[in-house]
Amino acid sequence: MTSHPRTRSTDLDPNLDAVLGASARDARVVAGVGRDRRAVWLREAALRLDAAAEELIALAAEETRLGEGRLVGELKRTTFQARLFAEGVTQGDLSRARVDHADPGWGMGPRPDIRRGFVPIGPVLVFAASNFPFAFSVFGGDTVSALAAGCPVVVKAHPGHVHLSRRTAEIVADALRAEGAPEGTFGLIEGVAAGTAAVTDPRIQAVAFTGSTSGGRALFDLAMSRPDPVPFYGEFGSTNPTVVTPAGWKHRADDIIAGFANSVSLGAGQYCTKPGIVFVPDAAAFLTLMPSLPVQPMLNDGVVEQYRDSTADMAARVGVALEREDNPGGAPRLFRVHVEDVRADPGLLSLEMFGPAALIVEYSDLADVEALLAGMPGQLTATVQGGEQIEPDEAELVGSLAFRVGRVLYNDWPTGVTVTSAQQHGGPYPATSAPLTTSVGTAAAERFLRPVAFQNVPAAALPADLQDT
Amino acid sequence: MTSHPRTRSTDLDPNLDAVLGASARDARVVAGVGRDRRAVWLREAALRLDAAAEELIALAAEETRLGEGRLVGELKRTTFQARLFAEGVTQGDLSRARVDHADPGWGMGPRPDIRRGFVPIGPVLVFAASNFPFAFSVFGGDTVSALAAGCPVVVKAHPGHVHLSRRTAEIVADALRAEGAPEGTFGLIEGVAAGTAAVTDPRIQAVAFTGSTSGGRALFDLAMSRPDPVPFYGEFGSTNPTVVTPAGWKHRADDIIAGFANSVSLGAGQYCTKPGIVFVPDAAAFLTLMPSLPVQPMLNDGVVEQYRDSTADMAARVGVALEREDNPGGAPRLFRVHVEDVRADPGLLSLEMFGPAALIVEYSDLADVEALLAGMPGQLTATVQGGEQIEPDEAELVGSLAFRVGRVLYNDWPTGVTVTSAQQHGGPYPATSAPLTTSVGTAAAERFLRPVAFQNVPAAALPADLQDT
Repeated sequence: MTSHPRTRSTDLDPNLDAVLGASARDARVVAGVGRDRRAVWLREAALRLDAAAEELIALAAEETRLGEGRLVGELKRTTFQARLFAEGVTQGDLSRARVDHADPGWGMGPRPDIRRGFVPIGPVLVFAASNFPFAFSVFGGDTVSALAAGCPVVVKAHPGHVHLSRRTAEIVADALRAEGAPEGTFGLIEGVAAGTAAVTDPRIQAVAFTGSTSGGRALFDLAMSRPDPVPFYGEFGSTNPTVVTPAGWKHRADDIIAGFANSVSLGAGQYCTKPGIVFVPDAAAFLTLMPSLPVQPMLNDGVVEQYRDSTADMAARVGVALEREDNPGGAPRLFRVHVEDVRADPGLLSLEMFGPAALIVEYSDLADVEALLAGMPGQLTATVQGGEQIEPDEAELVGSLAFRVGRVLYNDWPTGVTVTSAQQHGGPYPATSAPLTTSVGTAAAERFLRPVAFQNVPAAALPADLQDT
Repeated sequence: MTSHPRTRSTDLDPNLDAVLGASARDARVVAGVGRDRRAVWLREAALRLDAAAEELIALAAEETRLGEGRLVGELKRTTFQARLFAEGVTQGDLSRARVDHADPGWGMGPRPDIRRGFVPIGPVLVFAASNFPFAFSVFGGDTVSALAAGCPVVVKAHPGHVHLSRRTAEIVADALRAEGAPEGTFGLIEGVAAGTAAVTDPRIQAVAFTGSTSGGRALFDLAMSRPDPVPFYGEFGSTNPTVVTPAGWKHRADDIIAGFANSVSLGAGQYCTKPGIVFVPDAAAFLTLMPSLPVQPMLNDGVVEQYRDSTADMAARVGVALEREDNPGGAPRLFRVHVEDVRADPGLLSLEMFGPAALIVEYSDLADVEALLAGMPGQLTATVQGGEQIEPDEAELVGSLAFRVGRVLYNDWPTGVTVTSAQQHGGPYPATSAPLTTSVGTAAAERFLRPVAFQNVPAAALPADLQDT
């Protein structure tokens, strides 16, 4: 394995080395802390973040251009999420124990007593996202799911909100310290060099990332090139195709147009679940009926530039026309194309425009759309906008889309991802790099728990979850 | 992503292209087949393999030099395993459904009806192992777990038993055809070129591999270099450290020596779970008391050569002495070293000798062994051989070993891996490339099931598992 050289920690920035060293040193202690204590850690951090809401929201507003209403809601979501994981931990959602008692008559020969539980995977490196300064950042879903699982967390701050990240980290670290968590339970690092060095550091046992496919893929490649590759949970981009069926167009056109106008422009379209491609039977009518979309500031100058580039790329594709540009200097843009042109250039299905833009695709036969989407690259979501009652061809489309996405919706919109036990935020590559996992919802903690079987082990040495009750 | 060029199917061998094409073409049909039918497929194939036992065992004996007793037992294990998966499928072991009904009072804002189920990941490529011509080969654990999950399977035959592989594949294909499975449900390919081309083919959605770390790592790297990386479930090698505690040595020395002599030489030591490193308080006494080990033929000439190389490598390490060589021309070899030399050369902990050999490590303080093994590379198993009643330091050692291995045993031996619901055959790299999964036991099917959430989807379009009952 000489082709996979190991990063030597002596090459590391001393601060980074100290953070990684503390996480590795304390990993077993964190793993050994009872579930109830871990739940207390999460709740205490949530409590302190809520108490500091005014200060944190002011910092976030300074650094991200996101409106106060959005930021208030996002912080609420973030602390709710932490409490939901705390509840999941104490209720044993994460145990998934399997117990097989010894059986001398087992069909392949006598079997021993064997019990399967889970151990925390070890220190987790979390790359924060730009577009959710709370919910997918320092104390976001990746961090709380790893802490719930019993893993130390090292967060790589997003450069788009550095001061908010530092202040959030201080509050979280204070809360953990106050509740007796060891120092290595949580740490913050900054900068591209530190982030990439940490990905290949042998002390890191898993990586979680939320961001673009290109940036994420580079880090994924680094993690896979380690002498000891580790799981890389990358949540990347998505175009989130939405299909307005003939029945939907006939019976719910007004609802659908109002819903789309809201979903495409929510948060200035800066969501990985924004509906970026809409198949409609009549594109001209769809565009004519569309209300004016709100013009909102985007996160930061970098995002504005990427938005300009990706929409310019879209405008240059064969058959694509820019049909609506609500503000020439900036925001909402709607493009139009015929389904035949998408079939000729299937790359259009994965051309994400991060911002309030969408491609409206006109079609005449629903079967053509189903066939096209059956071969599309992986997506986080796909949506069917049907009539009042689901039709057989719509049900078939729902079933077919399930094979290419992480979440299928019917007569609903993909933005505003709820955090629950049954949520699934994932999908085949390039939507994510780990299609069997979710980054939202309590199942996200499973990403950081490794199964272990205990064979013929006396009760005194068994984890609590595996004891006979 | 220009750095990740896609393999063009026009470059492929026409036979390989036909097999991959059929698997992709029929993947949705296979996924849509009800669980009960898939169980029938597995049972019918098991029935026909059992009926052909005489012919198959004769072929296996010709190609592998494994004894008849072993082969009879292995075929029994193989068909038992298929039936266990069939039972698991019909009993809904794989559903793991999560249902959250709509809740207008949900803490972060009203939540829609959301239900999380699973879809088969798509065509699975299985690399057969050399050392289990039935149980980890054409119709082994990887194949039956993928079929149970609803995925088509393409098996890359192991060159060590080509005729057996072809005949097994014929019988399986006939059974599936007789029960109405589409042609693309199952296929066999041969040769290194076909295997590597298949790993990077866009029609393959997951890869399962059992074999050496070096061969497996090369294929893992290929799978990760795809434009669309896919899960790679590699089960590699392991040295399976065993610790004889002071209490074990005092109270159970005879039992332990007899158990070790059997486990290290079972199947000529050609198991990935063979106990390859044994820590004992008194190495000289341990070796003196050891009975003569049986000399058995090894699988094939390639394995004999690797065994010679790896044992020569061991003999050349500083502080290591060859203490027992029961037959100078071939088989059992026991080496001896002091724990201080292992501390100085930790690479000894991952030097696998595939065959009936082991390294006996003398220690005086159990805490030294625990500290050493706490930092060892990932292993499939670790074993504690303690006294009649577990002591506190033994329980602590069991708990510590759980962080580095997939299975921990107490007063038992790691060979003879039972197939049950609670089995876990895996571990951190380099034991496997997918530490959160198992390749043995019914949980192995989870490797091929991708979660999907259905939001606000009417009952008519929901999978059966997600319906309200």
